Amino acid sequence: MAPVPSKTDKFSFGLWTVGWTGTDPFGGDSRPSLDPWEYSDKLAELGAWGITFHDDDVVAYDAPEEERRATFKKLKDAADKAGLVVEMVTTNTFSHPVFKDGGLTSNDRAVRRYGLRKVLRNVDLAAEMGAETFVMWGGREGAEYDSSKDLFAAHARYAEGLDTVAGYIKSQGYNLRIGLEPKPNEPRGDIFLPTIGHALALADSLEHGDIVGLNPEVGHEQMANLNYTHGLALALYRDKLFHIDLNGQRGLKYDQDLAFGHGDLMSAFFTVDLLVNGFPASPEATRYEGPIHFDYKPSRTEGMQGVWESARANMVGYLMLAEKARKFRQDPAVQDLMQKASIFELAQPTLDEGESVADFLAATEEFDADAKGAREYHFVQLQQLALEHLIG
Amino acid sequence: MAPVPSKTDKFSFGLWTVGWTGTDPFGGDSRPSLDPWEYSDKLAELGAWGITFHDDDVVAYDAPEEERRATFKKLKDAADKAGLVVEMVTTNTFSHPVFKDGGLTSNDRAVRRYGLRKVLRNVDLAAEMGAETFVMWGGREGAEYDSSKDLFAAHARYAEGLDTVAGYIKSQGYNLRIGLEPKPNEPRGDIFLPTIGHALALADSLEHGDIVGLNPEVGHEQMANLNYTHGLALALYRDKLFHIDLNGQRGLKYDQDLAFGHGDLMSAFFTVDLLVNGFPASPEATRYEGPIHFDYKPSRTEGMQGVWESARANMVGYLMLAEKARKFRQDPAVQDLMQKASIFELAQPTLDEGESVADFLAATEEFDADAKGAREYHFVQLQQLALEHLIG
Amino acid sequence: MAPVPSKTDKFSFGLWTVGWTGTDPFGGDSRPSLDPWEYSDKLAELGAWGITFHDDDVVAYDAPEEERRATFKKLKDAADKAGLVVEMVTTNTFSHPVFKDGGLTSNDRAVRRYGLRKVLRNVDLAAEMGAETFVMWGGREGAEYDSSKDLFAAHARYAEGLDTVAGYIKSQGYNLRIGLEPKPNEPRGDIFLPTIGHALALADSLEHGDIVGLNPEVGHEQMANLNYTHGLALALYRDKLFHIDLNGQRGLKYDQDLAFGHGDLMSAFFTVDLLVNGFPASPEATRYEGPIHFDYKPSRTEGMQGVWESARANMVGYLMLAEKARKFRQDPAVQDLMQKASIFELAQPTLDEGESVADFLAATEEFDADAKGAREYHFVQLQQLALEHLIG
Amino acid sequence: MAPVPSKTDKFSFGLWTVGWTGTDPFGGDSRPSLDPWEYSDKLAELGAWGITFHDDDVVAYDAPEEERRATFKKLKDAADKAGLVVEMVTTNTFSHPVFKDGGLTSNDRAVRRYGLRKVLRNVDLAAEMGAETFVMWGGREGAEYDSSKDLFAAHARYAEGLDTVAGYIKSQGYNLRIGLEPKPNEPRGDIFLPTIGHALALADSLEHGDIVGLNPEVGHEQMANLNYTHGLALALYRDKLFHIDLNGQRGLKYDQDLAFGHGDLMSAFFTVDLLVNGFPASPEATRYEGPIHFDYKPSRTEGMQGVWESARANMVGYLMLAEKARKFRQDPAVQDLMQKASIFELAQPTLDEGESVADFLAATEEFDADAKGAREYHFVQLQQLALEHLIG
Repeated sequence: MAPVPSKTDKFSFGLWTVGWTGTDPFGGDSRPSLDPWEYSDKLAELGAWGITFHDDDVVAYDAPEEERRATFKKLKDAADKAGLVVEMVTTNTFSHPVFKDGGLTSNDRAVRRYGLRKVLRNVDLAAEMGAETFVMWGGREGAEYDSSKDLFAAHARYAEGLDTVAGYIKSQGYNLRIGLEPKPNEPRGDIFLPTIGHALALADSLEHGDIVGLNPEVGHEQMANLNYTHGLALALYRDKLFHIDLNGQRGLKYDQDLAFGHGDLMSAFFTVDLLVNGFPASPEATRYEGPIHFDYKPSRTEGMQGVWESARANMVGYLMLAEKARKFRQDPAVQDLMQKASIFELAQPTLDEGESVADFLAATEEFDADAKGAREYHFVQLQQLALEHLIG
Repeated sequence: MAPVPSKTDKFSFGLWTVGWTGTDPFGGDSRPSLDPWEYSDKLAELGAWGITFHDDDVVAYDAPEEERRATFKKLKDAADKAGLVVEMVTTNTFSHPVFKDGGLTSNDRAVRRYGLRKVLRNVDLAAEMGAETFVMWGGREGAEYDSSKDLFAAHARYAEGLDTVAGYIKSQGYNLRIGLEPKPNEPRGDIFLPTIGHALALADSLEHGDIVGLNPEVGHEQMANLNYTHGLALALYRDKLFHIDLNGQRGLKYDQDLAFGHGDLMSAFFTVDLLVNGFPASPEATRYEGPIHFDYKPSRTEGMQGVWESARANMVGYLMLAEKARKFRQDPAVQDLMQKASIFELAQPTLDEGESVADFLAATEEFDADAKGAREYHFVQLQQLALEHLIG
Repeated sequence: MAPVPSKTDKFSFGLWTVGWTGTDPFGGDSRPSLDPWEYSDKLAELGAWGITFHDDDVVAYDAPEEERRATFKKLKDAADKAGLVVEMVTTNTFSHPVFKDGGLTSNDRAVRRYGLRKVLRNVDLAAEMGAETFVMWGGREGAEYDSSKDLFAAHARYAEGLDTVAGYIKSQGYNLRIGLEPKPNEPRGDIFLPTIGHALALADSLEHGDIVGLNPEVGHEQMANLNYTHGLALALYRDKLFHIDLNGQRGLKYDQDLAFGHGDLMSAFFTVDLLVNGFPASPEATRYEGPIHFDYKPSRTEGMQGVWESARANMVGYLMLAEKARKFRQDPAVQDLMQKASIFELAQPTLDEGESVADFLAATEEFDADAKGAREYHFVQLQQLALEHLIG
Repeated sequence: MAPVPSKTDKFSFGLWTVGWTGTDPFGGDSRPSLDPWEYSDKLAELGAWGITFHDDDVVAYDAPEEERRATFKKLKDAADKAGLVVEMVTTNTFSHPVFKDGGLTSNDRAVRRYGLRKVLRNVDLAAEMGAETFVMWGGREGAEYDSSKDLFAAHARYAEGLDTVAGYIKSQGYNLRIGLEPKPNEPRGDIFLPTIGHALALADSLEHGDIVGLNPEVGHEQMANLNYTHGLALALYRDKLFHIDLNGQRGLKYDQDLAFGHGDLMSAFFTVDLLVNGFPASPEATRYEGPIHFDYKPSRTEGMQGVWESARANMVGYLMLAEKARKFRQDPAVQDLMQKASIFELAQPTLDEGESVADFLAATEEFDADAKGAREYHFVQLQQLALEHLIG
């Protein structure tokens, strides 16, 4: 029997996910959307714990202040009534044509100032809504042609924008952290901050970088041909995994935003393993304790039934994988094989405690390279055990 | 007439490039190699300025110390005689089966200690040879299966290893910097430090990270579906572009190591543009002044003639692109279009000098989003001008 | 000086190319479009020879018959007045949500009947307009999930649909051939007929397959990680290259539809080489003599100026490449190297004329495998000559 | 409990799979191999039914005839003794440098004649061994540079070679069919016959094409960014699925040859579903009844234990997936949802029996496009049921 999601699982959904109407580059809406405040009850009933949104998912970007306030209040009230938190808020700096060359890195300075104001305004909103994460996905920050940008200036402006936002958050005393969301391309030919690594590297250059971390999305890393779980590990190693976006992708193509588990299944299994079990040999490592946020799209072939079925699919899939991952790590045969594969040994520093490089170099250690080159690592067998647990 | 390479161009070649004998996963040697010291004269004659090598390109990994010294001396003498510098040295921690699970991140601690000793020994060699860069490509640091590693520990051990090496360099007073060389996969299914971004992010976590930077390779970034020139820009923005590896790749497949210019030509053009012209609107940005290092393989279909022709091809291609890039940037029509595309405007900070966020938010600025959304950026026309310069 | 396109170059444009308003999955229109009949004059002025369109580019899919006729007449009149031919017509079976699971392969039979009628109706239109090619791009014929189709039935229905259309064309005596347009994915997760090969293989199974050939698009083949010029060669070998779609793509990502020459430049050079020079050693091979059709999108950053500049860019880029390709093949040094590379020898059958297999096996021929394994093919040098011609 | 493979499962292994010693482009052998005749007993013990090999897996390519005969006899005897069939034989036309530009499509005619002789000789061997399939993987038939081939002639020579071999098989009365094995790249930059579609399209042009079909490999199709199960469906639709190569691949990179099930797991599930259940709505379609052949490599990190564990993993994984696939299709909830998704309806021809196009066009059918556009297809829910069966 399929597991039943509940609030303690901390599942959350972007309003733009269940609210996607099926428009794509080759066709228009294939289903209607509800009003933003109409999603909460059903999401709560399905077992969700939170919702998230872009400003423009809720109100027109140019709505008068009063209407804006009223609309967000309506949304918050609906969420409250349904018992859902608003755990994350983000800003849309990509849909309106004014952002066609970017929000924080547009060549046009007036656009950048406009974009920055839009972001700052929604930082206030995020705080007001009680969100703890402010995601920044710079989908239009990029280029199709290497000729169209000064690439140094683009990074400088990106950093300036991020630092301004992070500084503002601090100055207002908001309980908010920024989650950068990398993506390699689409809608731009090449997007700045294409991967987890690039986002970390820019964050490291900031004055207020301590509250700037990552919101990595499964499909986005896979669009850069990368291993999502490896990326999470680097972000955790750097103490920068502030939020996550789970979904599914099937290889190098357009951003599919399939339900979690409907993309690379084995990779999803090990992502969940990391989230629920932590690193197997590094108990001291930071654990991700944040929301399990789904950023997916119900396929365009589906109507409203399919919307809800797909929302449920994300959560049920996650819970099934979690159960499998727990049993996998608890299995004594797995633990034994991990031992034989020297996995726990990797957690031991290479140098002895207090060993200096000089001592290390001076020491003479027996070492038979050929014998060590012939040792068994049991990696295939361990992976097969993982497979047998997963589909057993 | 094709341009003639000369020492002032600072071209250098890995001995493993011209020395590659054509072995690949599906076939053996298709040509012999010369002795390591036999390449210098011809490379110098073709116009090269320097050579580089892995320890194992020159001597057997287990050669007795005396033989080792004598062999490296022979190599250095040949280089001196030919007027070539040894600008970079690197260590092979990937060929011997002892490293089949990595050198610095092997699950097996004894292997890590052995690998670290091999690296440190060759740091001494690099200093002795007068090299200024010590490249570290961790080709075997990675995994095929997410089950086979503790990914936190893997990053911790990688960092420990790098910091040990960097600390040793400082302690010895060597004039050396470490250039990390990212690669997403091959020979491992997923390699740690898969891109420029990831390598920067790990370097940022080091105690001695100030002398740890990047040696990005064209094809490696492209194997992660990324824009190489964008990557260089981030590395330069972070003041971390210590060395470069130029070559050619044709899309997402095995590491082709074609001659520079024989891969993505338009991308190569803008890489050279960045190297010779710098950023168009950011004169204050750090310029890359290091060696123009080629890390390519003469195709397996070629004999020794093809080896030398291909070595020449890299240099001539670079010089032709450089000439085109200079004329491109000097063309008043290009400058005019860059102006119209607001490229220079991107170098202007988004906030006014001294403008506080509070002032910025308080200011009322006229802004017509729809009008700005309709403005022309002239990006296609500018790219077309680049194309017309390139093939004109 | 840039070359000037003229009617003899047979350049044609889809109305949906210059008419694209910049809508993409993450943003709305960034510029207006003109009325369909308003493009002809300017395209003619720029040097184009023909136009092409989908039915729905010109009239609403449910326009009353009278309005439909009047509108197409208006378009044809405008084209005539401008001296442009309508060389190809195609049907849109992808935009309306009714086609969300395909037109000819929808699981829903009523949809398939509706789709087939729409296609047949536009075959009549194509004939009426004087078009000689009827392109069929089955963008929605596919699936996101392997569970959602009977994949045998899907191919059977596709074949049934194509045969019905081809049979109808013959029964009406139209001077029309069908050009299948393969694409691997987008907007579906996997599209049926993903490559040139797959389309040829399905066409071979048809009763009326003689008038069913290919309309391969540069970017689509490249989205399957394939070499476009290789694909053209197979289509020509099978006498099935009925039409072409030129544009630019930068690697494995969403369908970029850049201007021709703004994607993989070296590949574009050899595509043009094939189109203008034919195969270098096979003068007997069929030549492609059809329209040079561009299926691209002016980048979303551009306004109407950029639309026209980008249209021009396709044609000028093509002509520049054509000029380079002619000179490349005429260069005696190139011819000499082609000889040394045994390129002409490949046109000689492997068996002697009239040689039976028995004779062949009985013959004793001197052959030194090691010597032949060591021969030079000069491929890198020849490629370098191509590069030097291209950017020289 | 893991299922136990048995001879009735028809599992077979290439000798080059368990015999791979771990050499890759960046490192040498990491384990020894056994003699070719030493694999049979253990494979049989693990549950295999057959073995396959390239000539050069067993004897040196230039072994004297007598030694050759003796060696193959020894191998056959060992297989017989272990109760294994030799179900497929293939020729190595890729390892020796003589084939560096191809066997059947080398520019050098003498090489082509040599290659053809090698192939024909091994056709005799295949027949003698009792094999029913002769696989032809043209790994070196291709190019790195578009300049290095006459691409028409290359296809003509490929066709000539295949037709000569197929004709020879017929003339000798052998019970053999040719299985072409497509691959997009590696070891060549671009390989001719890159996908299932391309191979079918060339086979269709042959005089003796009736005995020329396909041997598609999972990873090879995935290296062209394609859906393997879709490809099998086209091959079956064309009655050309003669043999299969199962293994695992994780995205667009070098050819990984992981164990089956260790790559894209969901895709593997639907491949097995097709093999064991056939097409769900097309009982009349040809079923694949041939060997379940694994073409994988035990990871280089493994020793001999890992070799055997990985061989077992392929079979056990297959059997587990088969069990899951059977239950999936038998589940009434799945059947019900397939009905609602109109999957069975796709097997119904679009035209009525005997309906002419004229009748079809003349008929007036009620059709509400907007209503049909809004229908539910239940694809996500069905996929989720598949997932729940798979990991339930």
